[in-house]
Order: sequence, then C-alpha cells, then structure tokens
Amino acid sequence: MRFGVNYTPRVNWWHAWLDFQPAEIARDFEQIAALGLDHVRIFPVWTYFQPDRLHVRPQAIDDLLRMVGLAGEAGLDVQVDGIQGHLSSFDFYPPWTQTWHRRNVFTDPDVIAGQTLLLRTIGEAIRDRPNVIGMTVGNEMNNLVEHNPVTAAEVDDWVEAMLAALDDALPEKLRCHSAYDAAWYTDGHPFTPQTSARKGMLTTVHPWVFSNSCAIRYGPLSTATTHLAEYAVELAKAYAVGPGREVWVQEVGAPEGHIPPEDAPEFAARIIANAVTCEDVFGITWWCSHDVDRSMADFPMLEYSLGLIDSSGKTKPIGESVAAAVRELRATKPTPVHRDTALLFDGGGVDSRAASGPGGAFFESWMRYAESGTRLAIVLADRAEEGGYLEARGITRLLRP
Amino acid sequence: MRFGVNYTPRVNWWHAWLDFQPAEIARDFEQIAALGLDHVRIFPVWTYFQPDRLHVRPQAIDDLLRMVGLAGEAGLDVQVDGIQGHLSSFDFYPPWTQTWHRRNVFTDPDVIAGQTLLLRTIGEAIRDRPNVIGMTVGNEMNNLVEHNPVTAAEVDDWVEAMLAALDDALPEKLRCHSAYDAAWYTDGHPFTPQTSARKGMLTTVHPWVFSNSCAIRYGPLSTATTHLAEYAVELAKAYAVGPGREVWVQEVGAPEGHIPPEDAPEFAARIIANAVTCEDVFGITWWCSHDVDRSMADFPMLEYSLGLIDSSGKTKPIGESVAAAVRELRATKPTPVHRDTALLFDGGGVDSRAASGPGGAFFESWMRYAESGTRLAIVLADRAEEGGYLEARGITRLLRP
Repeated sequence: MRFGVNYTPRVNWWHAWLDFQPAEIARDFEQIAALGLDHVRIFPVWTYFQPDRLHVRPQAIDDLLRMVGLAGEAGLDVQVDGIQGHLSSFDFYPPWTQTWHRRNVFTDPDVIAGQTLLLRTIGEAIRDRPNVIGMTVGNEMNNLVEHNPVTAAEVDDWVEAMLAALDDALPEKLRCHSAYDAAWYTDGHPFTPQTSARKGMLTTVHPWVFSNSCAIRYGPLSTATTHLAEYAVELAKAYAVGPGREVWVQEVGAPEGHIPPEDAPEFAARIIANAVTCEDVFGITWWCSHDVDRSMADFPMLEYSLGLIDSSGKTKPIGESVAAAVRELRATKPTPVHRDTALLFDGGGVDSRAASGPGGAFFESWMRYAESGTRLAIVLADRAEEGGYLEARGITRLLRP
Repeated sequence: MRFGVNYTPRVNWWHAWLDFQPAEIARDFEQIAALGLDHVRIFPVWTYFQPDRLHVRPQAIDDLLRMVGLAGEAGLDVQVDGIQGHLSSFDFYPPWTQTWHRRNVFTDPDVIAGQTLLLRTIGEAIRDRPNVIGMTVGNEMNNLVEHNPVTAAEVDDWVEAMLAALDDALPEKLRCHSAYDAAWYTDGHPFTPQTSARKGMLTTVHPWVFSNSCAIRYGPLSTATTHLAEYAVELAKAYAVGPGREVWVQEVGAPEGHIPPEDAPEFAARIIANAVTCEDVFGITWWCSHDVDRSMADFPMLEYSLGLIDSSGKTKPIGESVAAAVRELRATKPTPVHRDTALLFDGGGVDSRAASGPGGAFFESWMRYAESGTRLAIVLADRAEEGGYLEARGITRLLRP
C-alpha cells in the first residue's frame, strides 16, 4: 500500500510553475521523503501550461519533467494530475475558455480537443519515467460544474474522452480521474458515484471531514470523522461493477476549524489506521505537504494550515503523527479485514446520495456499527439480488440500516 | 510628434512573458526601429505578473525591465500599460478575481488594492529608465465592464485611484489611461468621454475603423474612415476642460474584413496624414507590430493580420507605407492647422454619444465638411456660452450640424 502526500510547493504554492526553482523543490521533496512517504501528487496549472488552446508550453513540460526527476532523486514516485482546473478554492481557466471566449469546459468540442492535447502532451512526456505512477485527469474537476452547467451523461462523455487521451498517452501507467465529495453525497450532482467508481483503472476518493460538516456535526475525534475515509472506501466499493477494484484515498487532511490543531495528530493516526483495514486500498495520500505561506492572499482560512510541514520548513506535530503511522504500517504490514457482512444501501441512483453522506440516515447507520466495532461492507440494494454478486464479493450476510 | 507601434511579440504573442526570450524580442525591436518608429507600447499580462493578490512576481518585473532595456538598445522608447486586463479579445483575470473568488475589478476594495500594488510595483521599477515614456493604467479596461457591472461614478473613482498610484510611482513620467471607443460613441457606457478627456495627463483615443462598422458603412478609403483618427482627436479636444490638452492616437490599425489588404497601405498613409493636421497630437501608435502566427488559436480573424510585419518577420506593404509616411513627416515637420471654426455638438452628456459616432448625425455632419476640405474643430454646445472658452481655444466661428 502506498503512502504519500499531495505536494504544495513551500515557495509560491503552485504558482511555482511561473518561477521554477529546482533547488526549492528538491528541498521540499527531501523533507517529504524524510517523513517516510513514497509518493507525491503534483498539479500542473492549466493557465500556465496551455495559454493558447493549440500550444502546451514546451518549457512547462520541461519543468514538469524536472520536477518528476527531482522527486525520483528523493526516492519519491509521482502522480500527475493533468488539468487544474481547480486547486484550493482557486479556478484556473485559460482565457480561451472564459468571458469573450466563454465555452463550457465539459462539452465544447474545441475545449475538449484542447484538454486532450494537454493530457496527451503531458502523458507522452512522462510515460517512460520509472517513478511516474500515472495520471489523474485533473484535480476535482467537478468544482467547475458550478460555472459550466453539464448533465451526468455529458460528464460521462467528458470523463471517457479524457481517460481515452490518457490511455493513448501512457498505456503502461495508472490512469484515473477524481471528484470532490459532491459526487458521492449530493443528489443531482452531475458527477455521479457510478462515474467515479466505474471509469478509470481505480476509484479515487477525497473524504474531507468538512463535507456536509462531518467533523463539526459529529466531533473531530468521533467515530464518523475518524472512520470517514474507511467509509468512503467501502461506499466506493459498493458502486463498483465488481469486486477487487482498487480505491485510492487520494486526499485526506485535517482542516483547521474542523479538526482543532491539538486533535490533528490523533485524528490523522486514527483515520489512516481505520482506512487501511479495508481491502483493495491502493494508497493514502495526505493533503498536503506544506502549509501555504500566510503572506499569500485569499485562500480560505483552512487552506493555510493543511501541511505536514509548516511554511518555514519545520515538520508539524501532524507531520510526525502521519510519519509515525506510516512507519508502523510499513513495519507491521497489517492485513486488511475481509468484510463478510454488508449494510444494504437502498440507493445508488442519482437522487439517493444524500442519505449516504454525513448527516444522512444510511451514513449514520453504518457509523453506529463502526462505533460498536463492526466493520461493514456496503452493498447497493439493487445489486443484492444479482446472481453471483454477493458471492464474488465474499459477502455472506446483509444488514438493513 | 511621436510615431510608434503597439508591440505584439512575433513569437508566442504576449504569452511571451511565460517564456521570456530576449533574443527574439531584441530582433523584433530592431525590425520596429528599422521602420523609423520611435516607441513601442507594451503589455504586461495580469495573470502572469500578479498570480497572487499580494505578490507581483519579481521575475516578471525583471523581464519587463529587460524588455525596456532591449527597446532602449534598439533606440525605442516605451510606454507600459499596467493592467491587462484585455488584449485582442482575450481577458486575463487572475484567479483571485473570478469564479469562487468573484469580485468586481472596478469596485472591490481588495482588487483595487491589488491593482494599485501592480501599478506601483511596475512604475517604481521603470521610473528611472530614460527610454520610458510613462504608463497607461491598462489597455482598454472598459472591455471588462461587460463582466463587471459598474456605474460612471464608480469608473471615475477607479480611474482616479489607478492614476493616483501612477502619480506616486513615476511622477516624472507620462501617466494616462485608455478606453475603447464605446467610451466616446455608446450611450450609457460607464466609461465616459469626460473621463477619457479630463483624467490623466493627456487623452488617449483608439479610433478603430470597425467601431460602429465605420469602414464597412462608408468604405475603406472614404472620408469618414480615413479622417476617423483626426475626428477622434477633435472630439477629444471638445471634451477636454480647456485648450492645449494633448491627444494620443494610441491605437489605430487596418483590420482585414474592414480594410482590404490592397487598400491598407493607402488607408494607413491617409489616416496618419489627416490625424497630424490636428493641433496637440502627442503621437500616433499603430496597432500593431507583428502579425499573430496563424498557429495560435481563437483570436478573432481580424486580429491575425494587423501587423506591419508578418509572422515570418517580413515587413508587409502596410509596414512600408507607415514607414514612408513617418519618414516623410519627420522630414517635412508639417505644422498642424489651427482650426478657428468649430462644429457645435449638442451633446456631451452620458446619453448623447451615439450621435457623435460613425452612423450618427453629428459624425456625418462633421465628415461632410471634411469631404469638402474643411477641417473643423468641435465645441460642446453647453460650453459655447462659457466666458472665455472659445477665445481660449482660438475659435471664432461656430457652425451648426
């Protein structure tokens, strides 16, 4: 199982692409590797990589390759997210997609051609690098839905087009996509659980404890909060077509205002320990490596302090806690628990998601079992009768919420 | 009188900031200087210079200084437009002004503080350079009105705040602002003629022959089209508080689809020759130096071919024509004609502008005099009775349209 971190450059955050400083990045990677982590997830910024629809900057690709190389020198593997798109509350729209050139970034054929050009160009550049894990289409592109209205069918077409570009560009590497939690918990949201759980080579989940105010609602060290990643993995497995599809806890973190700093180390240890009890976990990637320097403006308050390492370069207590958890997990190599008992979720349609999110009846029922020490799988009700399905998943007992 | 060109880098257009190549820029400037031009107007791109509201990139400022230096080595002076903002149909909004961070770029106090930081930082960096003419607030920022609703009073406050930043930053240099023609010709547009003609150290005009379809309506070599810059200067002088305020024909060009390429050299010669008959013309700055390479996407068709030099680096017939016109004007040093007869414009309020634009009654009346060889000044009707006003302007005769 992989343990890594979402990289946030200590100097200039992801605006670092504009003033590429290899020495700063090398130092950041050495610090990350020193925590015992094995990979970083990194984020090209769309407006900096592709200022013109037909041109991906060769220098940007060179800088990306340099970053991949520096990670390799530090002993880190790399997952590259193609289209940003969205990062930490900021959207990055190239000028050829907005205002006078306004076009829907999910449905406009020229924009889609531009996006696939970006993905292919990055993918072909990095595919032979041994320390590249693969590519994600982009970070939580469903944050762009608000300003680019789109149907679920259109999202599926878009995700398939993006994944096809990745399939062409780096067929030997991991190809996946990602979405923020509205995909799982918000009725009507056009990115669906099915899209997350059935497209790409594995399912990514981003179980943020601020989703539906989970940590505030239940408490920072509550069962619901500390089992949220475990739950997200099991929910993702329920939506998958069949058994065995891997799930990547690609973002998990301890946002201030939701997790008090004094509880953060304990929270981190517990949410990781619970998540690794699931089968088929590809890895856990903490958000994020470095705090955002307070001299940078306009980030939401919680985004400044999500790092394992502070903005002066000092490892924080939560960094020590994550490092210790990872060290222990690497030493003990715990075996995931096979879950032969599943909670039946009478949902799975586009408009039944709210029940499965924090605050929802199904979510709370699952968490009551977790509270009593029972680790449950999840089965969608409409699949329970499907011939061979339960057997394939090794589920012998069904509970109703 | 100054003759120059709006610089459009031959390689990568203004995305050139992302991959700063001094040798390419030096070569462009040498070509421009070889046409006999004495200055360039250059355009920092907001998203590349100020990715974070509180940080103007030192490297971007260094690149800008390098560009100013390269211009100097070629014998060219430089006008720097601070905020782009808008260029050739593309808007450049930093992520901290849009979507999830959406704020009005004319009225939000934090955005205004960010803009003044940008202007001050650029201004202080360049103010001691001998070949710097000065700064324009930004290029045609009124193109941003469509997506940032604003009143005329708010525009005035904004322009004053921006000019105050320039006054502080480079008090010894020229400080002005600019707007596209809606300011002069479109009723209700919140950038007003008064704002253009009364704020900053001089008035800039951008008499584009596609405004109100001027060239299509009257013909590419018609009186209206070839006198459009002259007319714009006289209209600007009418809106000024007093006599003697300079007017800069800061953008004028020969857009294909409006001026056929075969007419472009003649058009250029005539519109320049007519404009220099006006008194108090600061200079004429052609749009633009270099064609946009056809491999770049999404520019409006007419934007590709506005250069004096094509995208392979070859001077075009219109480039030869502008060079010849400038050479002759520098040799003969023609004296502007004092206009003692003015056409009375019964307007000047916010909602009387349409009459003074191409297609409007006042515009056409002025052009009928021009057709017969009479070069008229313009006087706003509500100022004609003002004690001493006509005397100060040296106007002895008033005509009614």
